[in-house]
Amino acid sequence: MKIKEFQLKLRERGLDAAILYNMETNRENVNMHYLANYPGYGFLVVPAKKAPFLVAPLLDIEYALKSRMRFSLLKKDFMEKIRKKLGKVSKLGVELRKFSVFAQKRFRKQFKNAKFEDVSGIIEELRMIKTKEEIKIIKEASKIAGEILSSCIKNFRNFKTERDVYNFLRIECIKNNVEPSFDFVVASGINPATPHHVPNEKPLKKGFCVIDFGIRYKGYCTDVTRTVYIGRPSKKETEIYTLVLNVQKNAINRIRIGEKFSEIDGNARKEFGNYSKKFIHSLGHGVGMEVHESPAVAQGSETKITEGMCFTIEPGLYFPLRFGIRIEDDILIENGRAVNLTAIPKELRTVKPKGF
Amino acid sequence: MKIKEFQLKLRERGLDAAILYNMETNRENVNMHYLANYPGYGFLVVPAKKAPFLVAPLLDIEYALKSRMRFSLLKKDFMEKIRKKLGKVSKLGVELRKFSVFAQKRFRKQFKNAKFEDVSGIIEELRMIKTKEEIKIIKEASKIAGEILSSCIKNFRNFKTERDVYNFLRIECIKNNVEPSFDFVVASGINPATPHHVPNEKPLKKGFCVIDFGIRYKGYCTDVTRTVYIGRPSKKETEIYTLVLNVQKNAINRIRIGEKFSEIDGNARKEFGNYSKKFIHSLGHGVGMEVHESPAVAQGSETKITEGMCFTIEPGLYFPLRFGIRIEDDILIENGRAVNLTAIPKELRTVKPKGF
Repeated sequence: MKIKEFQLKLRERGLDAAILYNMETNRENVNMHYLANYPGYGFLVVPAKKAPFLVAPLLDIEYALKSRMRFSLLKKDFMEKIRKKLGKVSKLGVELRKFSVFAQKRFRKQFKNAKFEDVSGIIEELRMIKTKEEIKIIKEASKIAGEILSSCIKNFRNFKTERDVYNFLRIECIKNNVEPSFDFVVASGINPATPHHVPNEKPLKKGFCVIDFGIRYKGYCTDVTRTVYIGRPSKKETEIYTLVLNVQKNAINRIRIGEKFSEIDGNARKEFGNYSKKFIHSLGHGVGMEVHESPAVAQGSETKITEGMCFTIEPGLYFPLRFGIRIEDDILIENGRAVNLTAIPKELRTVKPKGF
Repeated sequence: MKIKEFQLKLRERGLDAAILYNMETNRENVNMHYLANYPGYGFLVVPAKKAPFLVAPLLDIEYALKSRMRFSLLKKDFMEKIRKKLGKVSKLGVELRKFSVFAQKRFRKQFKNAKFEDVSGIIEELRMIKTKEEIKIIKEASKIAGEILSSCIKNFRNFKTERDVYNFLRIECIKNNVEPSFDFVVASGINPATPHHVPNEKPLKKGFCVIDFGIRYKGYCTDVTRTVYIGRPSKKETEIYTLVLNVQKNAINRIRIGEKFSEIDGNARKEFGNYSKKFIHSLGHGVGMEVHESPAVAQGSETKITEGMCFTIEPGLYFPLRFGIRIEDDILIENGRAVNLTAIPKELRTVKPKGF
């Protein structure tokens, strides 16, 4: 996707070419996947002015064929061949955060006098603005994710442990032919105080229960959180939940094209007042091919809200060894407005697990 | 695990300390996980002569507590604090293949005159030899994986598509409270010719069907492949299957402590004779916390077979646009012998999916 836009940026920045690579068989390079529609192992070579191509191993030939990119097979002397195809290179784009000192040595051999410049930022900026095609998929993904999480909340009487909830969500993913976009959080009792809690096999406890859930559908992620209540909440608990909910709603209502994400985040913190110390993470993050990507919806984020962006709004409060609350929706900027992709009620809901 | 052995190696190599890190919230640094029992985000600092410690963000405090390591919270000036705790450092161990040029700059600021040396090899060598505790888990994992794959083959009449087989395996994982260790391969018709084929939703076809399956249980992976036949194989097909099976069995029988992996791999290639060109990957790979790890069971691997190693033996033949066959077992070296952890029959089995 947007490989021509990427080449344009290379020319604007005076780069002769960029090389992206993936050396890990168990993982993908998401920037390479995005630009070349290729999730495999190997190299993506993007000259600024000529046709880009892949260098792929025989093992990943199916991916290479599906990518519809030109490709050659990965053989021992591939780096030399790449250099020959590129010709003279003074400035070479690489992904500096992923560019290991080891790889640098290898590249240096071929591109002796070239200057290596980071291009991850360029690609991540391109990825930040979703195309119509991507938006269509993200909307479908949000619909499926919403249905799964809603049916999970409706089925609460069948669950006895956090693991039961987690497994229900995983099985629903399989039934819907989608993948989990991360390891879901299901946290009850004092566990929601830890935002990254791992579900356990103990009986669900009275109090807030945080469910952080997301799917990957046709390569695109969703990320949604709902907090329900097991038993009956105290007045104080209801008040704190309502505070988080209002901060979340107000944050969504404040979204305007051109506004900086730091302002949205900062305002949410202000609204938390004395509780702001209990809000220990960012207000949100971009979501797309990765469950966490640009833009940063956070303090210090100078990025401005722009048409085509997709990101979470997820304020939360965490009281160590007591409880935690988080409410998270996925927001898309479409036709100049914030469209909430998450159609799951947010009012505090009490649930009764098995045995309650 | 083995953090003391790691410190001993640091001293032997004249290193003052090592720093491992994980900057990606969605992934773990497996070497750090292994040494510190910490799968979170942050830093592991291992002085050669003093107690090691973690620097962990508040978000991952649950992991930090479970690790039983000393830890401090990740704050803005953490690099300076690490430097102060370490004192004078002339030689600093890092994971060079994961050490980005970006991180190098950041480390350089604190450790101005230090030499950075790779320590990934040391850790991967430690991981290669499994402890009794690890072996116990790996055996349990193999048992569960074997039961799931066997029941999948027994249930073949209920499957219509590759995706049905794949989903059955995923659901069985959930029922058994284990995770997939990779994206399973289910390939029928001409698809097994691609070792990394992605399961599709078309009806299963006559011919070989390759199922490459693995689970992660208590942090440890298994990786097993069986090839079944849909319909009735021709004489030629049975012959080729038998060849792969014999090469696989002979490779296992040849395993002796002290023998180089390159010899085992080379011998398998020799036994394939004219077909060896169709054997397009290594004979196997180590398996443990990662589904692919050291040792390399491959051409050029000078590593010698050693007590406590765990690895796959998985010869395969691939005939593009026609068919493919692979048979893979997990082998453990225990009490001087090769113990086959995979208790699933390997003789060619014909199966009838739904509609056949």
